Formats: sequence, C-alpha cells, structure tokens
Amino acid sequence: MALSARHVGSTIAEIDAMDEDSFVRSVGAVVEHSPWVAAEAWRQRPFGSVAGLRLAFETAIRTAPRERRLELLRAHPELAGREAAAGELTEASEREQRGARLDRLTPQGLDRLRALNSDYRARFGFPFIACVREHSVDSLLAWGTARLDRDVEAEEATALTEVGKIVGLRLADLVTEDPA
Amino acid sequence: MALSARHVGSTIAEIDAMDEDSFVRSVGAVVEHSPWVAAEAWRQRPFGSVAGLRLAFETAIRTAPRERRLELLRAHPELAGREAAAGELTEASEREQRGARLDRLTPQGLDRLRALNSDYRARFGFPFIACVREHSVDSLLAWGTARLDRDVEAEEATALTEVGKIVGLRLADLVTEDPA
Repeated sequence: MALSARHVGSTIAEIDAMDEDSFVRSVGAVVEHSPWVAAEAWRQRPFGSVAGLRLAFETAIRTAPRERRLELLRAHPELAGREAAAGELTEASEREQRGARLDRLTPQGLDRLRALNSDYRARFGFPFIACVREHSVDSLLAWGTARLDRDVEAEEATALTEVGKIVGLRLADLVTEDPA
Repeated sequence: MALSARHVGSTIAEIDAMDEDSFVRSVGAVVEHSPWVAAEAWRQRPFGSVAGLRLAFETAIRTAPRERRLELLRAHPELAGREAAAGELTEASEREQRGARLDRLTPQGLDRLRALNSDYRARFGFPFIACVREHSVDSLLAWGTARLDRDVEAEEATALTEVGKIVGLRLADLVTEDPA
C-alpha cells in the first residue's frame, strides 16, 4: 500500500533547509494545481513554524496579481462536481470531500449542491470554494446560498480566505513543528 | 453628526509613516478590545498595501502565544448576545451585526442563535465567532451547528481565521491603497 501524504511529513527544520525544487515537490500540492504559490512562498524562508509557513503561502496568494488569483480560484474543483464523479480529484480534495460526506449525498442533496455550483459559477466565474472540513452538507448549502447574494469582489476575497484555510490544514497534515 | 469610521480613512502611505501610538489609535480598533495586535503588527511596517497590512495583523495574531490567542477570542461579543442587547457593541460590530439582520431576528431565530451561543461557549470556552458580512441568518445557524461537532483545536483555528476576515474587511473600510 502506498503511504498517504499524511504520513510522509517533514519537520519545519527540514522544510526550512530545502531548495526550491524539493520544497515545491514536498508541499506544492497543498494548493490545487498551482505550484507557483509554493515557489513564491519558498522565497520567504525560513518559516520557523507551521503558522509561519501558512502565512508565507497566504502572502504569496494575496500579493499576486488579480488575474493570477482568479486563475487559482478557477483551478479548484467543484464540491461533488465533475472531477469527483470522474475520480479526478487530487488526493487531498478527495479525502476532504469524503470527510464532509459529499460522496454520500442523498439524491436531493446532490441536486441542490449541483444547482448551487452552477448558479455560483454563472454569477462569479469561478467555482464555489469552501473549506469543507469546517462544514456539514447543510451548512455548505446554506452558506453557498447566502454567498450568491454578494458582489464579486467580496466573493473573491472570501474564496481566497477559504483557500488559505484549506492550505493551512493541508500544511498541518504534512509538516510538524520541530521537537522542543 | 459624527463621521463614521468608514469615512475618516488613511492611505497606506500615511499608515506606513505613523508612529506606534498613531497607528494603534488609527487602526487598533479593527480587532475587538485587543490593541496589542496593532502594536505588534506595527513592527512589520512598511505594509505597502491593504493586503500587506492585513497579513501583518494576521501574523501578529497567529504567532502570539496560545493563551493570548484565546484571550483574543474571548474578547469577542456574541452574535445578537448580551452586548448587542445592552448597546455595548463596538461601532464596527454593531454595523456588521445589523448588516446581517441580527438586530431584526424573529423570536424563533433569536432563540436558536442564543441556544447556539450558549452551547458553543459551554463546549469551547469562547464565543461563536463568524465573519457575519459573509453570511445570512440561516447560514450562521447552520454553520454554528456544524461547528459544534468539531474539536477545540480545530475550532480555535477556524475562529482565528474568522477574526482575520473580520479584521481584513475593517481595514479595507479604514485604509485606501495609495493612488497609482
């Protein structure tokens, strides 16, 4: 059996000592299909802590040009969407969506989420993104519905902060603090 | 009529030139009852952009000792809670809770939110915190209910990220980018 990414972690000291290629290979996948974020974050080393590492990723994302940030949002899969149905989610996304029971929706729940995904993308031009580890199916549906009423600049900011949460949790799975 | 904080903003260049006292007086209130965050963020100047300023606040919060972070969470008011009923919310909180219609809840909505606040605080030891500008009443209730099932470390991280969103939006109200 292959080891899951969860079990092949590095310590912060190891992360801080990595060259750019090793760093991007080790932690670049925490941002969906966007290794440029890790390459940019690497320039802020040393990180010193998992919190510092997360902040470096968030800095790279939030200081990128707007078009780059929109590409990042558009690189995300829908929740219980086409990629999930086709088995094309990244390992981390698959585990997170499964953890939120998005692979076991009722037919009605699936219909509601797909309608939300479709309405959301039509309105904002990128997929509905939420840190599903913080949610139930009910709260995802309620929140997505509320977010449909907002303006696009507000939703871009919210979506990017959700990406930050997702990245933070994935980094905490992969990287451990140094022993005291 | 007194000017609202929304209309007495500074530019980033002005913010970058401030001494610590002026900085804390100008933007310290963006974090509920916790001016130490601004004092700590000030050490990271110059900020260069509103995004950079927000990241400095988030860095100050997330790299603080855990007990300090918990104090920060405990300094937040409940949603539609005692402070709101007593007229003791900060100006920013009052505006945000009003914007989410939390001052116009149905009796049933108010009962549900108060029960949630009570259950949440009993379980985690700090109030239920959410960036209400992103929510409807329904989505706040659904999300709070989902969050009750999580463990305390996960909720601390979520609550701190919500604080970061709140701070980011308040900073964007107070501070404008420099003219191009």
